[in-house]
Amino acid sequence: MKSDIDRLMRERNIDALLITGAAQHNPAMVYLTGIAKLTQADLVKKQGEAPVVFYNSMERDSAAATGLTSKCLDDYHPQELLKQVGGDRIKARVLRYQRMLEEFGVTSGRVLVYGKVDAGLAYATLEGLGRALPDLTILGEAEDSLLMEAMMTKDAGEAARMKRMGEITLQIVDKLVDWLTSQRARDGVLVKKDGTPCTIDEAKRLMDLWGAERGVEYPDETIFSLGRDAGVPHNPGNPEDALRLGETIILDIFPCERGGGYFYDFTRTWCLGYAPDQVQALYADVANAFNQVVGALKPDAGVAQYQKMVCEIFEAHGHPTVLSTPNTEVGYVHGLGHGVGLNIHERPFVSTNAPAGESLRPGSIFTVEPGLYYPDKGMGVRLEDTFWVQPDGRIAALVEYPKDLVLPVKSA
Amino acid sequence: MKSDIDRLMRERNIDALLITGAAQHNPAMVYLTGIAKLTQADLVKKQGEAPVVFYNSMERDSAAATGLTSKCLDDYHPQELLKQVGGDRIKARVLRYQRMLEEFGVTSGRVLVYGKVDAGLAYATLEGLGRALPDLTILGEAEDSLLMEAMMTKDAGEAARMKRMGEITLQIVDKLVDWLTSQRARDGVLVKKDGTPCTIDEAKRLMDLWGAERGVEYPDETIFSLGRDAGVPHNPGNPEDALRLGETIILDIFPCERGGGYFYDFTRTWCLGYAPDQVQALYADVANAFNQVVGALKPDAGVAQYQKMVCEIFEAHGHPTVLSTPNTEVGYVHGLGHGVGLNIHERPFVSTNAPAGESLRPGSIFTVEPGLYYPDKGMGVRLEDTFWVQPDGRIAALVEYPKDLVLPVKSA
Repeated sequence: MKSDIDRLMRERNIDALLITGAAQHNPAMVYLTGIAKLTQADLVKKQGEAPVVFYNSMERDSAAATGLTSKCLDDYHPQELLKQVGGDRIKARVLRYQRMLEEFGVTSGRVLVYGKVDAGLAYATLEGLGRALPDLTILGEAEDSLLMEAMMTKDAGEAARMKRMGEITLQIVDKLVDWLTSQRARDGVLVKKDGTPCTIDEAKRLMDLWGAERGVEYPDETIFSLGRDAGVPHNPGNPEDALRLGETIILDIFPCERGGGYFYDFTRTWCLGYAPDQVQALYADVANAFNQVVGALKPDAGVAQYQKMVCEIFEAHGHPTVLSTPNTEVGYVHGLGHGVGLNIHERPFVSTNAPAGESLRPGSIFTVEPGLYYPDKGMGVRLEDTFWVQPDGRIAALVEYPKDLVLPVKSA
Repeated sequence: MKSDIDRLMRERNIDALLITGAAQHNPAMVYLTGIAKLTQADLVKKQGEAPVVFYNSMERDSAAATGLTSKCLDDYHPQELLKQVGGDRIKARVLRYQRMLEEFGVTSGRVLVYGKVDAGLAYATLEGLGRALPDLTILGEAEDSLLMEAMMTKDAGEAARMKRMGEITLQIVDKLVDWLTSQRARDGVLVKKDGTPCTIDEAKRLMDLWGAERGVEYPDETIFSLGRDAGVPHNPGNPEDALRLGETIILDIFPCERGGGYFYDFTRTWCLGYAPDQVQALYADVANAFNQVVGALKPDAGVAQYQKMVCEIFEAHGHPTVLSTPNTEVGYVHGLGHGVGLNIHERPFVSTNAPAGESLRPGSIFTVEPGLYYPDKGMGVRLEDTFWVQPDGRIAALVEYPKDLVLPVKSA
């Protein structure tokens, strides 16, 4: 949790955090500033102290709204710095960061850097900063970083925001189901009143609208894929495809609060009108694995056992999995789930490559999303809910939604 | 232009480009892959050769859709690499990049890095890569980078996409004006049929809807600010504020193609019902400066003269500017404009701190957006259109829209 950051800094011997980039769609900055509207910002947080946010003078109102100590970037006279280094913009940046860190007493020790910015710019700037402040050790981490460790458990306020996103997700899914089931079938295709086919693109544009009406964003494209494409997990669906009856449709929708806030992640698989026998069998295997795994979830349990468990269940039903065939592209081809928060994918990673000891702790919010994929047979099935390990240890989906395979459709 | 990349690589002695991160909301990756849907990707482009894109196996369909040579990241066996380095995720990343670069013969020379990712992760990975491949010089650049230089001029296809964004922007603005002028005034406030006040938040939610209907996104928050807030250039507006008559309203709207494509940038200032004398005078000063500068635009002209020109015009009318008072927060407080493309702010920068020699070349697409700000007097005015230097040297706004200050409103 956010309240763990200072403890984690002490344990990991980190003297300061430096976060850079906009406050929008930049999880580290959003985490420490709240949902702010800064388009250019830096933030320094020393161990045991409150953060200081650096802002562009045109955004002074937004900076003030963060409630943090703030300082205008103009106070470092960027134009003079640029002249001083002969117009070299990297050197000017290095000098500015050097002065900022010197002013706030971060000139030695270990500073951990975050923030979504250009990779090359970050490298060149931090490499120069390391030379300018030789007593400072500049560090970066991957998915197992300090902030990702803090983010791995959510406080009640964060859980409430994610539950709200879940409720909005279900409103959108409800409207989509209403739309799909209020059309007619003709020649195996869903058609509108005017007889033209309903397409994947139309369904997505409607979900965009319903999301916009509810104040949510989709930073990544919603997956609404059909038949063979549903057999490729991240295939977002072919926009022009007409919705055909009897084929698997995967809806994987993961909206977030506008500006880059908390996400919710949800997947259902449907067949319009009817489901062929082989799809029904595939669906039953996924639903069975889903239910078995969810029934086995326990707080403080290591996650690796659940990935192993789902692989064994699928293999017992004759499906290849990543357990026996690491690079398989048919059968069960991915991890069982992942944490969700300000990042759509974060810890805990419930997969083969989860960090050792990764576990479901009170406060964890994570997906369970088994799936089976057979693109050459023209089908794929995935089911996903987002679960919360409550403070008392109970584990439940943040929001509940039926798992019916077939959506009934009338004939035209 | 994109076709200049190889020439620029030769001129700047760059042997390869390495681009990392998702293809969404990541301008460098979008530029080289087209609008792809990859959520995890890398790209290597050697001088004089076509790019190679590296993808996650679940996204193989999207990778194929780029039309580029592609290679699955699983082929580097990330799990084995992770074991090999004792679970250190940074070291495993370094090893993967090392193998990727070795395979494509990029082990010496100068490699320039791009891509929107976590700053610390980028630093730690590239620093390790530099040690693993000591003959490789890893470089990062700032706003004056090679790709930003290429992006500074647009080809006809890019200009057409941006003009289309401009047309959609005007459709949204038209609908907003219709909405505003179809309400009634009561006690100095715009009210709906039911007598409740129209708020800034409502106007923004409507623009979100109209954007979603047209397939565009607003990665940053639209500015729709009133009175005193309009006097602070990047204040996005207070959502709860009722729309009051006779106060300046700044609308600064800059949508982009869904997923992070080309932008358009547009600003108008309005008063509902009537404009007080001092607002009329301020508006006239901004409109005059806008017209004078636009009339003076010439291809191949250095940009610095236009920023100087607008400052001199404003100072002649008694306004402080950044020319005489560099950190002023009243009067004219920012640059005259900026390039627009896959980034909302890119070259050419038409401002005091533009790189020396920055000019308007055929293919440049840039904003002209003079403004005057007096927050303590409760007002701000800005006008902005996006201009294109056509191949034949003519300069015109990509789309045209009226510049009336007052939007008429009927009494309730």
